Amino acid sequence: MKASTLVSAASVATRQAASQPEYPPVDYNTAPPNLSTLANGSLFETWRPKAHVLPPFGQIGDPCMHYTDPETGLFHVGWLHEGAAGATTDDLATYYDLNPDGAPFIKAGGVNDPIAVFDGSVIPSGIDGKPTLLYTSVSYLPIQWTIPYTRGSETQSLAVTHDGGRNFTKLHQGPAIPSPPFAVNVTGWRDPYVFQNAKLDSLLKSTPETWYTVISGGVHGDGPSVFLYRQYDPDFQYWEYLGQWWHEGANSTWGSGEWAGRWGFNFEVANVFSLDEHGYNAEGEVFMTVGGEWSFAPIVPEVSDSRDMIWAAGEVTLKKGEVKFTPTMAGILDWGASAYAAAGKYLPASSEASEKSGAPDRFVSYVWLTGDFYGTADFPTPQQNWTGALLLPRELSTGTISNVVDNELSRETGSWRVASRKSGVLELATLKQVIARETLAELKSGERFTEPARNVSSSGSVAFQRSPESKFYVLTASLSFSASARGSDLRAGFEVLSSEFETTKIYYQFSNESVIIDRANSSAASRTTEGIDSRNESGRLRLFDIVQDDEERVETLELTIVVDNSIVEVHANDRFAVSTWARSWYASSKDIKFFHEGEGEVEFGEVTVYEGLYDAWPDRST
Amino acid sequence: MKASTLVSAASVATRQAASQPEYPPVDYNTAPPNLSTLANGSLFETWRPKAHVLPPFGQIGDPCMHYTDPETGLFHVGWLHEGAAGATTDDLATYYDLNPDGAPFIKAGGVNDPIAVFDGSVIPSGIDGKPTLLYTSVSYLPIQWTIPYTRGSETQSLAVTHDGGRNFTKLHQGPAIPSPPFAVNVTGWRDPYVFQNAKLDSLLKSTPETWYTVISGGVHGDGPSVFLYRQYDPDFQYWEYLGQWWHEGANSTWGSGEWAGRWGFNFEVANVFSLDEHGYNAEGEVFMTVGGEWSFAPIVPEVSDSRDMIWAAGEVTLKKGEVKFTPTMAGILDWGASAYAAAGKYLPASSEASEKSGAPDRFVSYVWLTGDFYGTADFPTPQQNWTGALLLPRELSTGTISNVVDNELSRETGSWRVASRKSGVLELATLKQVIARETLAELKSGERFTEPARNVSSSGSVAFQRSPESKFYVLTASLSFSASARGSDLRAGFEVLSSEFETTKIYYQFSNESVIIDRANSSAASRTTEGIDSRNESGRLRLFDIVQDDEERVETLELTIVVDNSIVEVHANDRFAVSTWARSWYASSKDIKFFHEGEGEVEFGEVTVYEGLYDAWPDRST
Repeated sequence: MKASTLVSAASVATRQAASQPEYPPVDYNTAPPNLSTLANGSLFETWRPKAHVLPPFGQIGDPCMHYTDPETGLFHVGWLHEGAAGATTDDLATYYDLNPDGAPFIKAGGVNDPIAVFDGSVIPSGIDGKPTLLYTSVSYLPIQWTIPYTRGSETQSLAVTHDGGRNFTKLHQGPAIPSPPFAVNVTGWRDPYVFQNAKLDSLLKSTPETWYTVISGGVHGDGPSVFLYRQYDPDFQYWEYLGQWWHEGANSTWGSGEWAGRWGFNFEVANVFSLDEHGYNAEGEVFMTVGGEWSFAPIVPEVSDSRDMIWAAGEVTLKKGEVKFTPTMAGILDWGASAYAAAGKYLPASSEASEKSGAPDRFVSYVWLTGDFYGTADFPTPQQNWTGALLLPRELSTGTISNVVDNELSRETGSWRVASRKSGVLELATLKQVIARETLAELKSGERFTEPARNVSSSGSVAFQRSPESKFYVLTASLSFSASARGSDLRAGFEVLSSEFETTKIYYQFSNESVIIDRANSSAASRTTEGIDSRNESGRLRLFDIVQDDEERVETLELTIVVDNSIVEVHANDRFAVSTWARSWYASSKDIKFFHEGEGEVEFGEVTVYEGLYDAWPDRST
Repeated sequence: MKASTLVSAASVATRQAASQPEYPPVDYNTAPPNLSTLANGSLFETWRPKAHVLPPFGQIGDPCMHYTDPETGLFHVGWLHEGAAGATTDDLATYYDLNPDGAPFIKAGGVNDPIAVFDGSVIPSGIDGKPTLLYTSVSYLPIQWTIPYTRGSETQSLAVTHDGGRNFTKLHQGPAIPSPPFAVNVTGWRDPYVFQNAKLDSLLKSTPETWYTVISGGVHGDGPSVFLYRQYDPDFQYWEYLGQWWHEGANSTWGSGEWAGRWGFNFEVANVFSLDEHGYNAEGEVFMTVGGEWSFAPIVPEVSDSRDMIWAAGEVTLKKGEVKFTPTMAGILDWGASAYAAAGKYLPASSEASEKSGAPDRFVSYVWLTGDFYGTADFPTPQQNWTGALLLPRELSTGTISNVVDNELSRETGSWRVASRKSGVLELATLKQVIARETLAELKSGERFTEPARNVSSSGSVAFQRSPESKFYVLTASLSFSASARGSDLRAGFEVLSSEFETTKIYYQFSNESVIIDRANSSAASRTTEGIDSRNESGRLRLFDIVQDDEERVETLELTIVVDNSIVEVHANDRFAVSTWARSWYASSKDIKFFHEGEGEVEFGEVTVYEGLYDAWPDRST
């Protein structure tokens, strides 16, 4: 979701000099005032992450427009920011702004995009062999699925870089794809995502390595759709419409809706990619990530705006001359209510980062974490002078859960599918997602310490023997449960960013198979200041019954928790993530505690803390 | 041709107060200075016509956007002028500006048309029953068939009037027709002309009285085309593309090219209408008027710009599911090199003008007469503070030439076709075009005098016994020739705007069957000032062999010459027109003379002069 779809296109933040002026010191040892009364910029450092991607200042919107430059091997990460801006990385850990002060490489205000630049994607060797951007050029606002669509508000235009991505120059012409399919009353039609796909080539008898683009949207009264187009000419001028490749009924769900949210009324930011167990493979299983926009009844025009960040794998078949995508499994890429608009890209083994790390071809995705709840929260953004970030890059691949007991749990329509049954047990397929290997390695490169393993069976919180020295660290742990835990009221996990004044609880809750981030007491500032969200985050993760050494046991919960000041990412079992903001105020809120509630025993093992994280922006002065 | 297709969109003329300041008197009794040295505005009255349509000041471009308002019965005449402006008429003689100072009812500068507004046409009862304009919204320039087409430079947009045509409010949305047919490399794609047509309804199984629009243009390397679209929804939002209804080979011709010019490389301003012998009839024979843009080799990019103002009648057939227009005859609507961009409209019998005159349903067309040769002449426009006009409105209908001898002359592929052969003679069909009845009646309403008939057989010019008192008049005459004239060097006609210093010769020349307007000595100013064209005008008119009283004779030449100061319109035999500028300088250049050159006798009969014309703009102060 572009922050500007519903509101104006004006950037939230005022561009300021990169060198921050001196502010009166803020006292993090006493209760906070109403933060909106503080001087602009005075909270710049308070909650700023170190290891995450975000602009030097100002607002970040959707990630998009990533690519590996064939000339340099550098991976370019892009995001909406006063148009779109970006940075390069040669190691998926450290980033370098393409332009001073993070200035954009493309801005709105042209003939095609007088109002806004929305998401786009890049063909690395496009027009004249140069990186070529296909993006949504916006002429009219507002745009939202809850209101009638203004014809022509979204078109798809081309821009090319001739200076290594510092500027993308718009073609002096109208849009390459000037309108939605004829007379289709769309709910949205944006975020072109270019890709190559061997299955489509084969089914559609395309020249091998033809480029395709999907455009995300939907049809009023009918439901969300992914519109498919095929490259028509070597100059990428024309894109042949091939139909609604993927369509779901309005506000319908995958299965019960508990595992993959709601397809909703309109799709956004659809990505298409093919995976195998190692990573990206153009001939692999076809996956999409897609933002679903939905609402429960009644739908309030320009207000209803629930979102799900969905992934789906699907079969691609030819029906009546049109290719169709039929999901075989679907899930949520990140369960955080502020996590949305994932944008990924094929990262070839030949990229600088991959050559250094020895990684194979990968598909790497960045999820947006909105800092002001999609523009609706009255957060003290002027005081912070930035808002939002991208979550850590994730490698996606096909994942396997082996030796699963063949029971109701494994047979449910969920974010997995039964791949095979052998010797009485199942092998489940799912989407594997982990923090990119280089990123995670760098995150863990600081001083580490291990907390002794312990079994906990009584409710309460127990402080770690040693807590981290800062609010920047990785915490990993394995939590084992007995079979009796299933269906019980047991909750177990950790408290982080914790002190006598504040704490953020992260725990697994068997009653609804969910990972919870309880932010009720995360921030003393939430009691003085609007827009500091204290609502729980919740994501569904099934711990299957596994056969191990001929015994059935509940799958171990493998947690990787990244605390990057106010950003908390909780990754579990290589297939789950829930990320959010936890804006602790007190300097002392650095403790970690074991957390247990309800009946039952939990075994905490391999509890390790990696201190300090690292600075992802070595060249920035702020 | 829009003045702005090749140059910038800036208006040529500076808007000035309608009340002209006082200038030092210009002396029309002595030789002119270089007129470009005079004060701006000082030549405003010098060549200004009285009875023609033009704005109060400034430039006029293509006529377009005419319609009869169903609420008032007034006929609205439109033209390009700082966007598009217009006037209403209830008698086809006098006009009233829609807005003070002739200000436009639509201007460029919106999201769809940041650069220019080009020609459009009006559905009288369109969106919400209001007059609805479909027009070409321009985003990029230059546009010309000699250069690569900038995609998206021309789109077709909607605007609606809610105040009787004084303002057309653009819909707050993108174009209704956002792009040319997919991947067609057009030479142009503009000037949507809306119409209803019973033959198309029938062939295409459309709902009766469906609206269609043609869009004029062509395909690079392939030739000019008329693209056909059909109304898709009751709100006129969508227009279904039905193919290239009419297409001709690049730079090909009708027959030898002598009778209908060249189809050229690109069509502009196509009008579609159906006629019978009375006028407009939705079920009648299908005609088009169209501007052909062409060049002889070599084509010079952005320079080559020859034009023909063509009409054609054609058969409409269904071939492989697409309707096709195949000309059965074609000609030139006006042979003047400055006459172009005709725009007509169905004028119902229920209109105010027709109710007063008792006229039936008609099709009335206005031809543009560019004042500065499409912007290429270095005319002293600032001194004149206006440029260009529309020619007098013409009624079009199917015409008949009866009792024609069946010989090579009548059997040639020309601007006629053989309708039937009876009793050894042919009846030819052609396009009948005459000055609109009300207009002509008003033109002739002044004092009249008749010059005695005379036979002239020796070369020389003979002054009328009485010449008109002004440079505003109509001259009608019948010229009869003997059979021996055919193929001879005989030239016969009149000199007008004539004095010892200047003269404009208008004559029929048998050697190439042409009506010539010889402007070599039309203006003393052409010898001191750039941009006052002295080139001949020439148009081809065949005087057939006719059987009359059992004798073969050469068809009589029936001339109607309108002299409206600098505008000279020569109409002949209800099927021919050539119009141009003749910018006499001297006050004394008012004489008329008989003109004869070469061998042979000519009988001048019914020579009548109608003095003074009338003021078409009773409400204007200038």
